Amino acid sequence: MVSKVKRLLIGRPRKSTELEQEKLTKVKALAVLSSDALSSVAYGTEQILLVLVAAGFTAIWYSLPIALAVLALLAILILSYRQTIYAYPQGGGAYIVAKNNLGVSTGLLAGGSLLVDYILTVAVSASAGTDAITSAFPSLHNHSVGIAVTVILILTIINLRGVTESASFIAIPVYLFVVAIVVLILSGVVKYMTQGSHAAVPEIGTAVSNVSLFLLLKAFSSGCSALTGVEAVSNAIPNFKAPSEKNAAKTLMMMGVLLGFMFTGITLLAYWYGITPNEKATVVSQIAESTFGRGGIYFIIQGLTAVILFLAANTAYSAFPLLSFMLAKDKYLPHAFMIRGDRLGFSNGIIFLGVLSALLVAAFHGHTENLIPLYAVGVFIPFTLSQLGMMIRWYRLKPSGWRTKFIINTIGMLTTLTITLIFIITKFANVWMAFLFLPIVMFIFMRIHRHYQNTADELRIQLDKDKPCIKGSTVIVPVSGVTRAVLHSISYAKSLTDNVVAVYIGFDEEEIHKMEQKWEEWNPGVRLIVLRSRYRSIIRPLLKFIDTVEWKTSATDHITILIPQFITKHWWQAALHNQTSILIRTYLMNQKDVVVATVPFHLHK
Amino acid sequence: MVSKVKRLLIGRPRKSTELEQEKLTKVKALAVLSSDALSSVAYGTEQILLVLVAAGFTAIWYSLPIALAVLALLAILILSYRQTIYAYPQGGGAYIVAKNNLGVSTGLLAGGSLLVDYILTVAVSASAGTDAITSAFPSLHNHSVGIAVTVILILTIINLRGVTESASFIAIPVYLFVVAIVVLILSGVVKYMTQGSHAAVPEIGTAVSNVSLFLLLKAFSSGCSALTGVEAVSNAIPNFKAPSEKNAAKTLMMMGVLLGFMFTGITLLAYWYGITPNEKATVVSQIAESTFGRGGIYFIIQGLTAVILFLAANTAYSAFPLLSFMLAKDKYLPHAFMIRGDRLGFSNGIIFLGVLSALLVAAFHGHTENLIPLYAVGVFIPFTLSQLGMMIRWYRLKPSGWRTKFIINTIGMLTTLTITLIFIITKFANVWMAFLFLPIVMFIFMRIHRHYQNTADELRIQLDKDKPCIKGSTVIVPVSGVTRAVLHSISYAKSLTDNVVAVYIGFDEEEIHKMEQKWEEWNPGVRLIVLRSRYRSIIRPLLKFIDTVEWKTSATDHITILIPQFITKHWWQAALHNQTSILIRTYLMNQKDVVVATVPFHLHK
Repeated sequence: MVSKVKRLLIGRPRKSTELEQEKLTKVKALAVLSSDALSSVAYGTEQILLVLVAAGFTAIWYSLPIALAVLALLAILILSYRQTIYAYPQGGGAYIVAKNNLGVSTGLLAGGSLLVDYILTVAVSASAGTDAITSAFPSLHNHSVGIAVTVILILTIINLRGVTESASFIAIPVYLFVVAIVVLILSGVVKYMTQGSHAAVPEIGTAVSNVSLFLLLKAFSSGCSALTGVEAVSNAIPNFKAPSEKNAAKTLMMMGVLLGFMFTGITLLAYWYGITPNEKATVVSQIAESTFGRGGIYFIIQGLTAVILFLAANTAYSAFPLLSFMLAKDKYLPHAFMIRGDRLGFSNGIIFLGVLSALLVAAFHGHTENLIPLYAVGVFIPFTLSQLGMMIRWYRLKPSGWRTKFIINTIGMLTTLTITLIFIITKFANVWMAFLFLPIVMFIFMRIHRHYQNTADELRIQLDKDKPCIKGSTVIVPVSGVTRAVLHSISYAKSLTDNVVAVYIGFDEEEIHKMEQKWEEWNPGVRLIVLRSRYRSIIRPLLKFIDTVEWKTSATDHITILIPQFITKHWWQAALHNQTSILIRTYLMNQKDVVVATVPFHLHK
Repeated sequence: MVSKVKRLLIGRPRKSTELEQEKLTKVKALAVLSSDALSSVAYGTEQILLVLVAAGFTAIWYSLPIALAVLALLAILILSYRQTIYAYPQGGGAYIVAKNNLGVSTGLLAGGSLLVDYILTVAVSASAGTDAITSAFPSLHNHSVGIAVTVILILTIINLRGVTESASFIAIPVYLFVVAIVVLILSGVVKYMTQGSHAAVPEIGTAVSNVSLFLLLKAFSSGCSALTGVEAVSNAIPNFKAPSEKNAAKTLMMMGVLLGFMFTGITLLAYWYGITPNEKATVVSQIAESTFGRGGIYFIIQGLTAVILFLAANTAYSAFPLLSFMLAKDKYLPHAFMIRGDRLGFSNGIIFLGVLSALLVAAFHGHTENLIPLYAVGVFIPFTLSQLGMMIRWYRLKPSGWRTKFIINTIGMLTTLTITLIFIITKFANVWMAFLFLPIVMFIFMRIHRHYQNTADELRIQLDKDKPCIKGSTVIVPVSGVTRAVLHSISYAKSLTDNVVAVYIGFDEEEIHKMEQKWEEWNPGVRLIVLRSRYRSIIRPLLKFIDTVEWKTSATDHITILIPQFITKHWWQAALHNQTSILIRTYLMNQKDVVVATVPFHLHK
């Protein structure tokens, strides 16, 4: 039943040899990995203008130089990540680069920030997409948490179906969004060229008295939140079809060009049309309305924008499982994150991401706006660390032409470091949490690692010296009456060894007497030992008895406890049995060094 | 750690021989078992007046004849339950009486209604007590579910500590409440005699045009909700000190006298003072204010009323576990309800009652008023059935003087039947649920019974013929590498039998080759069988392999699967291991007829 539902949702299992077919072409990879970056076109320009209008309408011309700075940063990031891709063709997220060049702790800091960040990405995009829907249909407002969680559930299932299927699913809306925005920009430019602007727009270079450096920096850093998806490609190189590094590098360039073009276009049009942010309509929707009027094309653009906000989460679904796999391989996360599921994805990572982001949405009741700065810091810390790592790498290895590469990464590092600091200074109220939970995440990584190391030490054996040694065997069978289940257990026990004792735990003399008589009458060839339990506990007398047996025989014998377990025909019947056997099993496993063998007794009705 | 907290909350375990000390004296029993009945003094009169004022102020004189009718019913119920106590000295709730005289299904109907009713009692009283608190401190209004659930938690813990301790705990407030109400009534009567009434009061016998029979019946049935706790004593006879039936009968009479006196007093004073129900102040609080003014005594009476409403729930805590024990003994409920806990109470029943009533409070957000009629029906159905059962008993056995007893029970039966019908007719909107869930509860009882019967049939053996039979043994050890845990398992397996095979499930050729080499080098004297899993499943190849082994050897050998399990030092470490072994264990237990033996490997760090 469960497995049928699973087949229906996830699809049939795939052979390990099918892994190559699960790799992505450039076209699909661009859709999957750039949805996060491209979705920021929907809000990047708006973020800049929101800061600037605080200094008055005349200040909005600053959006142009600021957009230029963001574009320059984008170019630097793309170039330096391109270098990383070629340097680490096995997949070089910030975690790998930082770990290899700056040491393990720095790597864990980068990896930890990214993991947390991917969870935030999913929560924030699911909520943002939901906001777009509830703005259109206000009656749905009370169900926003439900909608966001449903979207997360759908994304989780799609990603469990495998990378290529999720790519096919999201490629169409992503490319439609790109086409729509390009059409919007071209039509807008043509309209501006032929008809001019509707509104008076402040001249470029107009002096505005109350524009401070702080304000400009804040506007710049807000604009930089448009760059948060850029690192995804370098993390996901193993998902590309061969030659994977070349395909990844080309995809990254393509993403840079698209993002740059769309961001420039929207910012220019916003300036030309003299658009300012507005509670009721986003900047993109105002541009679309000015260009096409409130008609069919306008609503198509709005709809695609809502969809792209949801799909931004999909980038995290590609990157998180790969990163958690790498951390698990290095023993900083549970082994479970290394298991490829039926459809060859790292299912546990996908499910973990889905569950945690859904919890986050529920905890914030869908109001995740305040998480955005936190999320930006979480990206720019690994950005900085990964550039720093690359600098050190060039300096150490000194390959041909390393100076240029070193300079590119140095500029990148300094810029991202500056942006990180600007974020921390200008938005400390939203960002301080990172300083609380990043150390916690790193502490967890370290503890897991130490535990796995210790376990490996305890498990290691010397192949030439440590050989199996054969001992005797004593089997203890707790019995509660003379039944067919007891008959089964005793038969099994006697097949293993001659040292079998049955143990009966009695609460009152009358029932003890009855049991002894019945046992004698049955005479199964096994001694019955009666333990009197004045406190009606089954566990304590049994543990004490095992102590005695251990003291007598543990040098010569393995001790085995046989516990019968009823296997019922229907699940609900299980509640009517086995509580005692589960209890005994749990206590014995944790407190004693004895083997606990469960003898099934299948009930047929 | 867990066991320390348990000791702190519940106290040290008690010996089975201490059971006699856990029995109740009459004084304590009266407190425990009558708190439900006595608490209805706080709302009984009000319920009658609420119905009557609908026909105008002049109609309130009808409260006197209605109260007389309720008193008569109380007398009948007390007399007939007194007869039941002597007839069933082992504890004769409606379940036993109905089962013995009217057949099993009728008994289950009575028992099921009562069980559900006790859950409703706890939910309703906890909410009513909370309402009294939040009326006094409106700022707590948002926390009412939390308060009610906390009270339920406290009552659950107190009752887990044992019957006598809970009795000592609640005896003081119960008797204080009785004293306070008696003082109130006496002072009120003295005041009325000396000073007369403040308000004009309608003359007894005044004709009121719009008083219909339906209205009077509705008022009467509402007043009857004051009688809901009367059956508790007859259920709880086993909790009394010897001679238990005599003590129980005396306690029942005492309860009847107290309840009758208090109910009469409050109703009379309400009439004399011309009090009508009022959103802001209850009838009792108006009487207290008129008598003593809004001073210290007034607030003491109000506080004690809130406390008694909470403690009404305690009656259910005494009766529910005993009734569920009886049903479990007859195999209509899981055996777990028969286990006496550390403090000799039926802990599982107590916990079950607490959890279900807390869920009910949470589901209704603390607004459980609508459950009151349902709860009254749930009492009057078993009232009726138990009287009917007694009638048949007298008729069958015909002891000396049976005619009088027969008549008493017949009058009782007819009255309670009438009240049940009145409830169903006048409050169908609140009561219909009973017709939905009572059949469900009975169906569950029947299914549980049938399952236990079938199990008993399958378990029964013939002592002279069914003897243990000895077979050979094949042990299968799934291994994932060459480690100390594997060494342990192989040593253990070889100690049991020579037929040991190690099974390795490999996902790719490279790791399989490595494993085979290492195994050969180690050479533990056990053959390694490699299963190739193209779909990366561990379960399916293993199940298939076991099929093959079963097919070859199941006639001659018991098959045992050894599964190593890591026992970690700290609980959180458990999440880092054992997922696979738990999975294997669950699948094998449910799908195969093999013994699963868990070999513990204790990690020390």
